[in-house]
Formats: sequence, structure tokens, C-alpha cells
Amino acid sequence: MSQGEAKVILTEPLLESEAVWTKLVKKTYRDPNGVKRTWESAERRTRPKDSEIDGVGIVAILEKETGPEIVLQKQYRPPLDKIVIELPAGLVDEGETAEQAAIRELKEETGYVAEVLETSPIMFNDPGFCNTNLRMVHVSVDMSLPENQDLKPELEENEFIEVFLVRLDSLWEECKRLEAEGYAIDARIANLAEGIELAKKFKL
Amino acid sequence: MSQGEAKVILTEPLLESEAVWTKLVKKTYRDPNGVKRTWESAERRTRPKDSEIDGVGIVAILEKETGPEIVLQKQYRPPLDKIVIELPAGLVDEGETAEQAAIRELKEETGYVAEVLETSPIMFNDPGFCNTNLRMVHVSVDMSLPENQDLKPELEENEFIEVFLVRLDSLWEECKRLEAEGYAIDARIANLAEGIELAKKFKL
Repeated sequence: MSQGEAKVILTEPLLESEAVWTKLVKKTYRDPNGVKRTWESAERRTRPKDSEIDGVGIVAILEKETGPEIVLQKQYRPPLDKIVIELPAGLVDEGETAEQAAIRELKEETGYVAEVLETSPIMFNDPGFCNTNLRMVHVSVDMSLPENQDLKPELEENEFIEVFLVRLDSLWEECKRLEAEGYAIDARIANLAEGIELAKKFKL
Repeated sequence: MSQGEAKVILTEPLLESEAVWTKLVKKTYRDPNGVKRTWESAERRTRPKDSEIDGVGIVAILEKETGPEIVLQKQYRPPLDKIVIELPAGLVDEGETAEQAAIRELKEETGYVAEVLETSPIMFNDPGFCNTNLRMVHVSVDMSLPENQDLKPELEENEFIEVFLVRLDSLWEECKRLEAEGYAIDARIANLAEGIELAKKFKL
């Protein structure tokens, strides 16, 4: 299989009665001046009742002798009809913490076995448009473990993911190169890369 | 007015026939194995026909003697029913480039007059859920200009924005502090902050 073969063949309006994963809602609110207004917003239907987040993104850095490298993925995404450069990521299951979801998703999608270093605040993907959100979980990958030599991802039948590594100090250039090759770039990666460039520029 | 007064009072399903700003679509696609599948996706209805992006985010850094500071905003967002810490940002108008939109929005929202330094690749906010995207435009703000001493934002009647500055080297700590105070954090800022922390940690 090659992800380049994947292709949207039909785009149709989705009826409210048909929607299983997504929904649109109308929020009626009082603005800061007390004026009543409405706002349209998109939501996932999948957030577990006891969860404050939809999912997690995973920052997995391999500390190599040649410098740190970050684990990235290529994944075909029907909403864009493109192969997207993304961090490992996934939705949280019922009763699962962000950290548990991160360790599980990283193992399933990449095969890497990891330990949690730090969990981020909740981040909102596009707060004027939708309520979707995630926590970023930073993990360490011990490359001396046998499981991390011989990677065995466990993908679902509708998941197509290619894992690759990028040197952290060239992530910004790599985003630009991959876009020029026709890939779409996920905002999390591009913003991480921009942060790295800002730190370099201002010697933080 | 205080943004803390704003509040959602009713959340209802939004009918397809009522929606003006948003829509749900069903994508029928062939997966990389040639299997026909469907995917639900959310979209904005506002992207100009000739535009490949919905909007822009603006990275405006003030270079002060005490170190670089980034321009941030507090804005009440009905989809979250919270005040969100965001970068200056906005939707592109018909016929407008990312750079033009960035300079216009920064002026309208903050009063700062700026010049473009660099424009990012297109970034997708949540590629498994929606097609919304933006370019980040990095700008320089010349603090010796009189317009940048006496700021005159030009907000629309339904816009409520408070502008503030954060030291770039403490952006990550500030995100955590602001979340603890009850603010929601936009992903672009939090990911920039994470990138800065990664660069510090690995001495990039």
C-alpha cells in the first residue's frame, strides 16, 4: 500500500441526523457588555463524559549521539485529502488519563515504548471555530530497551501511518521542505518548530 | 466591560439549514488499500474562493532591553465559554494575502504597526477533524514609531480583546500560570512555548 493512492472521491453535506463523530452547535451567550449574541461551533462527539480533553499529542525525542531527533508520522487525512506530517497522537479512551493515552497511542502507532516526562496544559486547536483540544505529553524513549530496537506498531485496519525521525534543530527547515513536496503540515509540529527558531534567534 | 461577565446561556444543535459560518461534510474516499470509506469533517464557510487559508496568526515580538516579549491577547470565546490566551489572529478577506491580513489584524486588534519578517508554511489546526488552517506571520514592531507608543486598536462591536505582553523566555511558565488562573490556552501559543523549552533543554 502507498498512502499516495488514497483519494477523496465525493464530498457531500453531512446531515445532523447522520453525524456520528462530529456535531455543530449554536451557542447563545451574553457578551462582555451584556448583549445577547449567538456563535456557531463545531465539536467532536467522542470526548468521554469524564474527560476534559479529546485527545493527546506526543512529543517523543530520541537522544542520539548526533543530536536529538523527534518522532513524526505521515498519515493520509480525508478532511484535507492530503498526507499530513503529524506528531503521534490519538483520542483518549473512557477512563484513561492523558499520560495513559499517550503511552498507549505511541506504542500502537510507532512501536516505541516510552515513559512520561511532562504533561502540558490543555491546548485548544481553534477556539473561535471549535472546542477540540488536547494535552501534549512529553515522553522519553530508552533506546537501549530491546522493544525499541525492533519496533512493532499495532495499527487498526483503517490506520495507515509511516513513522520517521527529524533532527530537532532542523525541524523548521524540514517543515518547509515537506510542504514543498506536497505534504500538509500539522500546526502542532510547525508551532514547535517556530518556537525552536525563536529560541535560537533570541538566544533564550 | 469585563470579559469575565461573558457567559454561554444556551447550547443547541445547529441545523444544516441554519448554519452561516460552519458546515459538516461527509468525505467518501479510497484508503491506501483501495477500500472505500467515509469520514466526517468540519469546515468554515468563510474561506475566500481564491484563498488556500482561512486565516493568519501573528507572532509579534518586541525587542526590549530586558529581553524579547511576545504580544498576546485575552479574548472570550463562546465555543469554550472561557477567556482564551491567544496570539493576535484573524480571518483573511477576499483577495488579501496572508501578510496583508496579518498587518491589518495586528493593527485592528492591538494598535501595533508592524513589518513582515517571515511567513510560515500552511498549518492545519486539527487534520483528523476539520480542514481549518492558517499561516503564521512573523512581524517586527518598531517601538520608536509614534504609532507604537500610543496604541489605538480598532475593534469591531462584537470583539473584546485585551492585549498584554509576556517575556518569551518565560512563555511556558506563563501558560501554566494562566491556565491555573482559569484561562484557556490556544494551541499555537502553547506549542511555541514548548518549542522554546525544547530548544533550551537540548541547547539548540
